[in-house]
Amino acid sequence: MPKKRILTGDRPTGPLHIGHYLGSLKERVNLQKNNEEFIMVADVQALTDNFKTPEKVSENVRGVVLDYLSVGLDPRLVTIFIQSQIPEIAELTIFYLNIVNVGKLEQNPTVKTELKQKNFGKEIPVGFLVYPVSQAADITSFEAELVPVGEDQLPMIELTRDIVKKFNTLYGKNTLTLPEAVLSNNQRLIGIDGKEKMSKSLNNAIYLSDTKDEVNKKVSKMYTDPNRIKTTDPGKVEGNPLFIYLDAFARDQQEVKDLKKRYRLGKVGDVEVKSFLAQNLNDFLNPIRMRRQEFAGDTKKINKIIRDGSDHARQIASSTLLKVKKAMKINYTF
Amino acid sequence: MPKKRILTGDRPTGPLHIGHYLGSLKERVNLQKNNEEFIMVADVQALTDNFKTPEKVSENVRGVVLDYLSVGLDPRLVTIFIQSQIPEIAELTIFYLNIVNVGKLEQNPTVKTELKQKNFGKEIPVGFLVYPVSQAADITSFEAELVPVGEDQLPMIELTRDIVKKFNTLYGKNTLTLPEAVLSNNQRLIGIDGKEKMSKSLNNAIYLSDTKDEVNKKVSKMYTDPNRIKTTDPGKVEGNPLFIYLDAFARDQQEVKDLKKRYRLGKVGDVEVKSFLAQNLNDFLNPIRMRRQEFAGDTKKINKIIRDGSDHARQIASSTLLKVKKAMKINYTF
Repeated sequence: MPKKRILTGDRPTGPLHIGHYLGSLKERVNLQKNNEEFIMVADVQALTDNFKTPEKVSENVRGVVLDYLSVGLDPRLVTIFIQSQIPEIAELTIFYLNIVNVGKLEQNPTVKTELKQKNFGKEIPVGFLVYPVSQAADITSFEAELVPVGEDQLPMIELTRDIVKKFNTLYGKNTLTLPEAVLSNNQRLIGIDGKEKMSKSLNNAIYLSDTKDEVNKKVSKMYTDPNRIKTTDPGKVEGNPLFIYLDAFARDQQEVKDLKKRYRLGKVGDVEVKSFLAQNLNDFLNPIRMRRQEFAGDTKKINKIIRDGSDHARQIASSTLLKVKKAMKINYTF
Repeated sequence: MPKKRILTGDRPTGPLHIGHYLGSLKERVNLQKNNEEFIMVADVQALTDNFKTPEKVSENVRGVVLDYLSVGLDPRLVTIFIQSQIPEIAELTIFYLNIVNVGKLEQNPTVKTELKQKNFGKEIPVGFLVYPVSQAADITSFEAELVPVGEDQLPMIELTRDIVKKFNTLYGKNTLTLPEAVLSNNQRLIGIDGKEKMSKSLNNAIYLSDTKDEVNKKVSKMYTDPNRIKTTDPGKVEGNPLFIYLDAFARDQQEVKDLKKRYRLGKVGDVEVKSFLAQNLNDFLNPIRMRRQEFAGDTKKINKIIRDGSDHARQIASSTLLKVKKAMKINYTF
């Protein structure tokens, strides 16, 4: 298979956690060898719903890059860059805004859902309404062919595809690259409190940067089967965060199977399961911690990776913008 | 009075006509000596409602600059630049979009009126809805203190002021300069067909670039008093384009007064009035034509003026963007 250009990324609003690993980072690491992967720290996009607390964004930019490096994303294989370093994305966004109708945005299923979640009421920031257009600019800037997304994000990619088709029809076919969505497993990991989604704002996450002690402490407090009072009560495995995490992260799945059996029969205590889980999580996190150590103290090294990645990304975005301006006949030279 | 920074400009969708002169160019020429004037050829903004015919925009960029030079705007005094050459405007726009609500745009009186005029129906391009935010970016990029506008545009400047106030409250006072609207006379000149507005699309304009013959021909076909059949019929002066133009452009207003008197009494024919008007318009246009000749053949000279102006404008916009990024705490260096 020929190498494909892929765009992925994250909003830098907090450290990445083991849910991010499972939902996307793991896949990115796998994809990096046989593809041309661009990974964007989407600081500008993060501001669309964090504009009142921009420090929440800026404080996490380097941390997210460090998270990337620690899970084994290799800057010799992937391009890691910061969205705000690529002004061409803003210029493309402005052009694309002309060929999208307001109604089309308001009716986009992803936008509708997110608007409800965000509880803006009647005060919808324009930036939030139009961020899918910015996202189309992100994707097309780098001529991405594949965009790994969860199912809930499919309508977003459909919008990008519509913009590409309309642009190419208006200004010249083959100007923009038509991207395809790739459904990533993108499963959401349950929080340590048993809530549906692990997230920083719910304060229920195990971070890739957590120490052994932090992991042990968090696991020891984990939500399990609420109906199980005594160790000898039969326990429920399904939906139990302990076993969800073990399914995802334990190296020895045979042992997990045994443990489940004993748990169902009331033949193992939460403490033992938790200790087994903590051990496994730490085993999983250890190589991540070691790679983090390589970079963590070396700001110069991280800066260089960000600078090189952003320079490379900007070169490509520049050439796309020039193509776009040519197609629109506004590529003046004076 | 200390020099004030002023921003004005035009959408390059056609050559400028004597209505533009009367409504704004004349005032710009007057203001250039004692102020710091920035004059923007708003090509990006023009695309918001001409995106299907971008050549209409690109073909008129240099022509509009030539119109500016021909009326006596002096590049040693003013900064003439092209909007698309200043990518910082797009970046600022993206940031400002976050602090404006959708409802605020939809309810802006100028936007409402223009949406009606444009007849978009349900297909309102997002770019059109948000162009007032881009305009706020134009104005604040150059730290403009004064913006000459017609009365219909006052709500637009009010929106810019709201954005500036909100931005400064959120991110630090004195980051952005609060502009003031200056009501320019901005009267609309009636078309040669008697229709309310002189415009390219109505094909009823006398251009600053028209030759003597073109002016004579256009004036000879001008709409006058429709109720006057014979030369000896008493004529109406009020609302009569011939006299509106004479009021605006004739050097000898005493002679205009006499002519009006004779016209009212049915003692002068349309032919004589028209010939007098044509003479006066050509007298007015002659120095403009001469200045045009200085530049018209010299693309290098015009290009240099555009390049120097755009470079200067970009320097200032860059420094504003840096200020904005600092205030938002996203002025990373890597």
